[in-house]
Amino acid sequence: MKADPAELRKLIRKGEWDKPTTGLAPGYVQANLVMLPRDEAFNFLLFCVRNPKPCPILDVLEPGQAGPAIARDADLRTDLPRYRVYERGVLKSEVKDVAHFFREETVSFLLGCSFSFEAAMLAAGLPVRNMEEGKNVSMYVTNRPCTPAGPFSCPMVVSMRPMTPEQAIRAVQVTTRFHLTHGAPVHVGSPEALGIKDIDKPEFGDPVTLREGEIPVFWACGVTSTLAALSARLSLVMTHAPGHMFVSDLKDEDLTIL
Amino acid sequence: MKADPAELRKLIRKGEWDKPTTGLAPGYVQANLVMLPRDEAFNFLLFCVRNPKPCPILDVLEPGQAGPAIARDADLRTDLPRYRVYERGVLKSEVKDVAHFFREETVSFLLGCSFSFEAAMLAAGLPVRNMEEGKNVSMYVTNRPCTPAGPFSCPMVVSMRPMTPEQAIRAVQVTTRFHLTHGAPVHVGSPEALGIKDIDKPEFGDPVTLREGEIPVFWACGVTSTLAALSARLSLVMTHAPGHMFVSDLKDEDLTIL
Repeated sequence: MKADPAELRKLIRKGEWDKPTTGLAPGYVQANLVMLPRDEAFNFLLFCVRNPKPCPILDVLEPGQAGPAIARDADLRTDLPRYRVYERGVLKSEVKDVAHFFREETVSFLLGCSFSFEAAMLAAGLPVRNMEEGKNVSMYVTNRPCTPAGPFSCPMVVSMRPMTPEQAIRAVQVTTRFHLTHGAPVHVGSPEALGIKDIDKPEFGDPVTLREGEIPVFWACGVTSTLAALSARLSLVMTHAPGHMFVSDLKDEDLTIL
Repeated sequence: MKADPAELRKLIRKGEWDKPTTGLAPGYVQANLVMLPRDEAFNFLLFCVRNPKPCPILDVLEPGQAGPAIARDADLRTDLPRYRVYERGVLKSEVKDVAHFFREETVSFLLGCSFSFEAAMLAAGLPVRNMEEGKNVSMYVTNRPCTPAGPFSCPMVVSMRPMTPEQAIRAVQVTTRFHLTHGAPVHVGSPEALGIKDIDKPEFGDPVTLREGEIPVFWACGVTSTLAALSARLSLVMTHAPGHMFVSDLKDEDLTIL
């Protein structure tokens, strides 16, 4: 597969790649997408600002604009492999482009994704079990409410990666640098404390193996932004399809604080 | 003076303190204030998101709300010692409260201020020349444009503190932690590179002494947010008066990334 983000976006735009973007264009930042009407754009931006760990803002476009600052010659209407279209909070279709749905009043948000720090964890010798097992990361809806804004209100979603306590300490250090892709974990050790009833039954993604001596380590997850956008039951919301992210020209290292 | 932020705000509200807040309630975060009409609130929030070093967002309130999340029982219309009121970008008055100007459509923004990291610099044994000399910090309008958003567009304003190159290295480390109060410096050494013609003639604040062997160290400055708000020549904008900040209940340490 193409390793260059601009080449990859061109291929996707032509309809020649409609599968997940995991592992593509390594070292480049991938992003969650949310598109919604301008009337609620202030409140949604406010939601993201108030909940920076699950919804770290990489780029926000002005109404009717589809070319993000973080990717040269890109078009958010066509350059993701798959989109989901929601009306009044209900999934209506999964499509390969959203040109027909995009309006003059549509505002697009690009939010950080944990793919960036997974590469850094691997480089630090830490296990990324979902990658080892060829699965999507395990994601859970927690009992922790996000700070609401206007009509947007939802619990925080977390992703989970199992590791030993010593590895968890190192993972805190490694991911703290990536504050725009969820940063440090939000919890270690107890699924119950987050209101997770069965660690083997994630709400999104796949279950992964928790080995003897390992604890679950939880990070805030970008899926929270989709839940938030849907909570307001707006006339029209478009998002990326899970795992089918927007590939930007930013390097993972551009997003680090240190 | 009162060291407790809630007590201090009460005193200010009663009109019993109308002087600068420098050095008051040590250890608690002080903030820049911008109030403007809801029609442009999305674009102004976008401006702050796009320019996080000069305009780090601490709190944004929904239209007509005056009680920020970061200070218990506070009222932004009355709890700052002095405000400035602008019409169409022009200063109209300096007042002790803005209750008469505040409308149902007014949106309030609280943005980080360098007072937080000055305390950390002192704790690290670094010089804060403006404090040593009992002056306001030196601030300059640079030749570096901020990323515009809607009608908001202005150059970045920086503050300057002189120190030796070795101290500058330590200051980078100390202030990096404070990413919500401007973070690491944006430049060291050359005023010319920032388009500053005369280091002894700051556009805002006072000049301070640059000693033999010292270099100027520049940080992004919250005054940028005032310049940005005024650039759109909106019907009504209210801000804190320089140095007369909002004192929150947040601790400086709450704003650190590490």
